[in-house]
Amino acid sequence: MRNVDEKVIRKQTITKYMDGKLEEKVDEIAVEFPFTIHVNGEEFATMVCTPSHLDELLLGFLASEGIIRSKDDIQDFHIDEGKGLCYVTLHHAAPVSQHEAGKRFIGSCCGKSRQFYYQVDVKTAKTSYSRVILSPKECIRMMRELQDSSTLFKGTGGVHNAALFLGKDMIVARSDIGRHNALDKLLGHCLIHHIPVRDGVVAFSGRISSEVLLKAAKIGVGIILSKSAPTNLAIELADDLNITAIGFIRGGGFNIYSHPERVKVTSIKECAKFESNK
Amino acid sequence: MRNVDEKVIRKQTITKYMDGKLEEKVDEIAVEFPFTIHVNGEEFATMVCTPSHLDELLLGFLASEGIIRSKDDIQDFHIDEGKGLCYVTLHHAAPVSQHEAGKRFIGSCCGKSRQFYYQVDVKTAKTSYSRVILSPKECIRMMRELQDSSTLFKGTGGVHNAALFLGKDMIVARSDIGRHNALDKLLGHCLIHHIPVRDGVVAFSGRISSEVLLKAAKIGVGIILSKSAPTNLAIELADDLNITAIGFIRGGGFNIYSHPERVKVTSIKECAKFESNK
Repeated sequence: MRNVDEKVIRKQTITKYMDGKLEEKVDEIAVEFPFTIHVNGEEFATMVCTPSHLDELLLGFLASEGIIRSKDDIQDFHIDEGKGLCYVTLHHAAPVSQHEAGKRFIGSCCGKSRQFYYQVDVKTAKTSYSRVILSPKECIRMMRELQDSSTLFKGTGGVHNAALFLGKDMIVARSDIGRHNALDKLLGHCLIHHIPVRDGVVAFSGRISSEVLLKAAKIGVGIILSKSAPTNLAIELADDLNITAIGFIRGGGFNIYSHPERVKVTSIKECAKFESNK
Repeated sequence: MRNVDEKVIRKQTITKYMDGKLEEKVDEIAVEFPFTIHVNGEEFATMVCTPSHLDELLLGFLASEGIIRSKDDIQDFHIDEGKGLCYVTLHHAAPVSQHEAGKRFIGSCCGKSRQFYYQVDVKTAKTSYSRVILSPKECIRMMRELQDSSTLFKGTGGVHNAALFLGKDMIVARSDIGRHNALDKLLGHCLIHHIPVRDGVVAFSGRISSEVLLKAAKIGVGIILSKSAPTNLAIELADDLNITAIGFIRGGGFNIYSHPERVKVTSIKECAKFESNK
């Protein structure tokens, strides 16, 4: 059996049923790690996550929750990996409590019918001004590169994967047992390394729910790629936030659910086909 | 195209890329519905869900959060489907705020090293005293029945499915875009119909995270079946709560991660093989 990172994968004896027999085998299991964040001396949130890149997860989560805008808002932080605890001191006062931030917000914004469900999203989800154009083949290649990147998934089958592309290149790929955490790690990575993301593309292994779409908006990209399905609410938000949502990238095909103008076929023959369908 | 329930599936025009061409097609999209619960006059929680069986979701969620123990704790409730709002009046005083309930709890219990991560779970997750025994073929059949039961998934690919079996029979199957909601609907169904679940089996389409395992414990079953992977924390909790966790039920085989004594091969030949492996 291959070497694995013991922090994120645990080897464990299980009982396997195969070919009519029950047998004991050693298998690889994804580690699920509780991580409690204290902000300015107060317990703020506990999440369960894959214990890798915890600094990125911390910054991405705080930015996604509207607690920080950049890493400069943080005076100091300390992660105690052994205990799964983290202590953050901000330059500014204590944040609103999660209870308030989680309250439902229904309003219209900029004259549109945009409806965010949590007050925090109104502050942090941005309309995209991305100018990026992808060919269908690039969409399919990016999803394949995402799938190839995750050794954790291959071992355990138990995690979600997310990657950020800039131009043609994958800048960073992260895995987590929590779908949102994988995206928060991307956001945290961008904040730590001051990566401009306006023309970036996020590829994601899971379904595109409204929360996942909002995470893409918080990261700041104009295109999200998924091998799975979106919800109607995610499509409405994508329409409104000027984000191209592409799902079911499988076997050489896919579906574009919003802003299809960012996907252009490149060969002349394919262009002609596209134009005739318009 | 088949008839669909417009409440849970929306038909929508998308751009499809297939065989080198971009074409407009009508597709079916899972509806994601915001549902805000007020308890005793105070906003308690907002979730996004599939808008079916909202009464079951409400009761299951409140029981799972430790707010009620049975439906008799509820004096009255009103669901406004148009607005996605729900008002519940309890016989007892207002619940602890979600902020408190969500605080991390680390303690030992009954001399074991059981570690629950939220205070609410300590109250609501039960040790199983289930006496049910399944054959491998029954495990595989139940998972297949779960998959056959969901027309919503077949249409949209965007939901999770959960079903409860008692004896050999599927009692109830529910779908939701939220993994936990599908399980909360099962719990709510059992509370509404006073179904005894000790010897029940839950089949679930998603991964077995600690939260999913705790939901199974809150429903009160002794076996959870999944086509996907568990996490190490879910296995630890399953060990501790005397629950049999079975994953990767695919193509005639599966893995048992905890309490394998509840799975017994039935033919004499298979029994002999099992005994020789012990």
